[in-house]
Amino acid sequence: MRRESVGQVETQCFLIPEELDLEHGDRLSDIRVAYETYGQLNKEKSNAVLVCHALSGDAHAGGWNKGAEKPGWWDLIIGPGKALDTDRYYVICSNVLGGCKGTTGPSSINPRTGRPYGMKFPFITIKDMVLVQKMLLDSLGINQLFAVVGGSFGGMLVLQWCLSYPQSVRLAIPIATCAYSSPQQIAFNEVGRRAITSDPEWNNGDYYHRAPPARGLSLARMIGHITYLSDESMHQKFGRKLQDKGEYSFNLTSSDFQVESYLRYHGENFVNRFDANSYLYITKAIDYFDPTRKGSLSLAEAFKEAKAKFLVISISSDWLYPSYQSKELVAALIANDIDVRHCEIKSNYGHDAFLLESGQMNYAISSFLTRTSVVDIMIRDVVTINLAASIEDAARAMMTEGVTHLPVVSAEGNLAGIVTAWDVSRAVALKYTLLEEIMTREVFTSHQRDPIEKAARSMNDHNISALPVVDELGKVIGMITSDGVSRLVGACR
Amino acid sequence: MRRESVGQVETQCFLIPEELDLEHGDRLSDIRVAYETYGQLNKEKSNAVLVCHALSGDAHAGGWNKGAEKPGWWDLIIGPGKALDTDRYYVICSNVLGGCKGTTGPSSINPRTGRPYGMKFPFITIKDMVLVQKMLLDSLGINQLFAVVGGSFGGMLVLQWCLSYPQSVRLAIPIATCAYSSPQQIAFNEVGRRAITSDPEWNNGDYYHRAPPARGLSLARMIGHITYLSDESMHQKFGRKLQDKGEYSFNLTSSDFQVESYLRYHGENFVNRFDANSYLYITKAIDYFDPTRKGSLSLAEAFKEAKAKFLVISISSDWLYPSYQSKELVAALIANDIDVRHCEIKSNYGHDAFLLESGQMNYAISSFLTRTSVVDIMIRDVVTINLAASIEDAARAMMTEGVTHLPVVSAEGNLAGIVTAWDVSRAVALKYTLLEEIMTREVFTSHQRDPIEKAARSMNDHNISALPVVDELGKVIGMITSDGVSRLVGACR
Repeated sequence: MRRESVGQVETQCFLIPEELDLEHGDRLSDIRVAYETYGQLNKEKSNAVLVCHALSGDAHAGGWNKGAEKPGWWDLIIGPGKALDTDRYYVICSNVLGGCKGTTGPSSINPRTGRPYGMKFPFITIKDMVLVQKMLLDSLGINQLFAVVGGSFGGMLVLQWCLSYPQSVRLAIPIATCAYSSPQQIAFNEVGRRAITSDPEWNNGDYYHRAPPARGLSLARMIGHITYLSDESMHQKFGRKLQDKGEYSFNLTSSDFQVESYLRYHGENFVNRFDANSYLYITKAIDYFDPTRKGSLSLAEAFKEAKAKFLVISISSDWLYPSYQSKELVAALIANDIDVRHCEIKSNYGHDAFLLESGQMNYAISSFLTRTSVVDIMIRDVVTINLAASIEDAARAMMTEGVTHLPVVSAEGNLAGIVTAWDVSRAVALKYTLLEEIMTREVFTSHQRDPIEKAARSMNDHNISALPVVDELGKVIGMITSDGVSRLVGACR
Repeated sequence: MRRESVGQVETQCFLIPEELDLEHGDRLSDIRVAYETYGQLNKEKSNAVLVCHALSGDAHAGGWNKGAEKPGWWDLIIGPGKALDTDRYYVICSNVLGGCKGTTGPSSINPRTGRPYGMKFPFITIKDMVLVQKMLLDSLGINQLFAVVGGSFGGMLVLQWCLSYPQSVRLAIPIATCAYSSPQQIAFNEVGRRAITSDPEWNNGDYYHRAPPARGLSLARMIGHITYLSDESMHQKFGRKLQDKGEYSFNLTSSDFQVESYLRYHGENFVNRFDANSYLYITKAIDYFDPTRKGSLSLAEAFKEAKAKFLVISISSDWLYPSYQSKELVAALIANDIDVRHCEIKSNYGHDAFLLESGQMNYAISSFLTRTSVVDIMIRDVVTINLAASIEDAARAMMTEGVTHLPVVSAEGNLAGIVTAWDVSRAVALKYTLLEEIMTREVFTSHQRDPIEKAARSMNDHNISALPVVDELGKVIGMITSDGVSRLVGACR
């Protein structure tokens, strides 16, 4: 399969025109949102896919920024022929509220003071971050996302999307994430925050006019980095190899092992590309994220309103966001009769695998996104018959339209029953004259977003060969038949 | 079983009279060693058990120091009726070289300058630490340890004992440890060191006249503490419970969750009882510990000289020193035909289980220590016959002494063969006259420290009913018989 990059891209900026009410009472105005888009929005505006980045990520998910040495952080997944296929989807990624990559955050200028917010930045939550994304999508005219996808912290935004705007998400793909942080996850975040606030250069968050708390932030990143790798991947990557030397340094402050140099390098490097206060705000939002409202709801209750279909992805060697957390989420979704698939990526990379295992990730995501729905193969110009019609009308309609199943609808267009050729012949035999006497009232139906597997299972279970497709109001909008399903399967093989 | 405390104990101090040559060339004089002892040294000085403490431990392993609120750190294991039974063993625990609990370390006064060493303290290794322990034992007149036991970092000292002084250790019990640190373990240590050296108060190790690097050291301890607990035990202990509040603080520098308060408390507390420079020196010694000499030997080759019998204990939920590291050690020992048992403690406590799982720990250690050896049941006043003796001499000796097996020894007393009553009767039948003609020359032997299971297995495998017990020079010092083994087993049941 051809897999290409989206090529050169440019980060754009959206200014939210109004002041926003944040979850915890504060208000915030002049919010700027950095975002990138790849692919074309179709005219129905139904092919938008929102990508949510991880803690240290940004809006630049795919393609190449001008003059950059590296492509976007998820370029392996975004582009023509990849899972987030830009020939099909309009992919959007925006930097989160509270971040430091173009979207308003603690390092932004507070318009009221003309100085950076620092610790004056209001307390923000994952719900607030999703609200800001929603406003961006509204500005792009997108009412409903085809899919929302994100790993790690980004996966929490995916979940919040399904809770805040259940009608606006068709497919949700939370990856290597959890519905709420474990005490161990909180502990690692707390140590990271503590490293930053213990650095005198942090200066209570007021450091933008001078040197940042480089030692604290790099330490926080080093701690994080350990948790992103598996024990096994560290064995493979570093072992006990020394860095550029054959002998130990016998020096208490020198790095000896490659793993030390690697962590130091990435820690120090992080300081150049991330803001310490953003680290505090975002990790605290992660710790607080809890759809169960401090355990007052079960996780199943918390997801009661969710409407999306889910693909939950976890990683076998991820010990920071272990698979059991994904399984707990899956169980809660199943308890709500939500259509959910769970895929555990087999990888030794640990948490970072969601950025690295391009083969498995592309396969899992693309086969989920391109899964055929009832809407894709249903007969749209479905012939119905009015409840007031006669049996002769029904027989005539079947003959002229060449169908064997006629949904019977009320004057308002709602499904009232179904009548088949077999019912008509029964009426002739038994001398019935009213449609009501022969039609089946308890009709099994299908919905346009159902995967075809579900419709096929339903037809098989009930030994019927067609299902009316109804919308949420009960209006018949199409018909799916076993012939249609069988044609598709035949074509695929 | 009666399990008691050893009662009030006092830390003692030993001053090494000479200057010591350290592994990496430095010399160190005026070394003081803090230690405690529990129980009585027997007159053969053969019942000494050395306990090696973990990173933040000290010499106070058992009993109660005067006025203390807590007993020694391993009081659950040390005392009358416990695994390290002070009615049987003379238990010794000393603070390591480089520590800060009474043994000379970076916080000690450098006699040459009259000021604390700080970073002027020489570079020390685990081998140096063991050397210092050896000098302490020499001063107590102990040539051979009955056992050396230790968990975590202490387990590395146990291993080093078996390498530095193979003749001086009868039984070795390394617990929740490894033969060399993994890159992940090095990474956590490095982040801890980095936290300390990033604290401006650290002042390149020169802080003894003023405030210590409290923030850095407490941060290092917080990181360590996370690694000592399992994910599951943190769920059980903390969950997402808030600390003394019903609502989040919405404050970036406040603790909200119990797990945060717990870590902060223990981190800050640690500063009062531990020296930051000791933390640097000891963790670096841990990272460098590597009997394979940077991979130039296999682990099996590294343990070629080890003589002790091993009980290797690991903990099922320990992710800092995972069981696979103990298994690797066990495989290396087995490759050297060393007598080794591996016991995996089933626990959810994580690494800390070696301090907490008193039931399983006591059982595993005591059943290993009290395991019956050949020496315990061998016949000591064994009758032998000289190689120059006649068959009639042999027959007469068997009759008068009431034995069926006679070891045949050379003029120097070395085992040359064995002759049995059955051999004598064979000689009569075949008219042999010389002992050499009828004795078996390839004699299976046993050693006094062998567990009786090994001797019993040997007798069974070779279909014989007695084994001469020989010392290292091949001299016969006793005899073990299947009757003796069977009597013991009968008595136990």
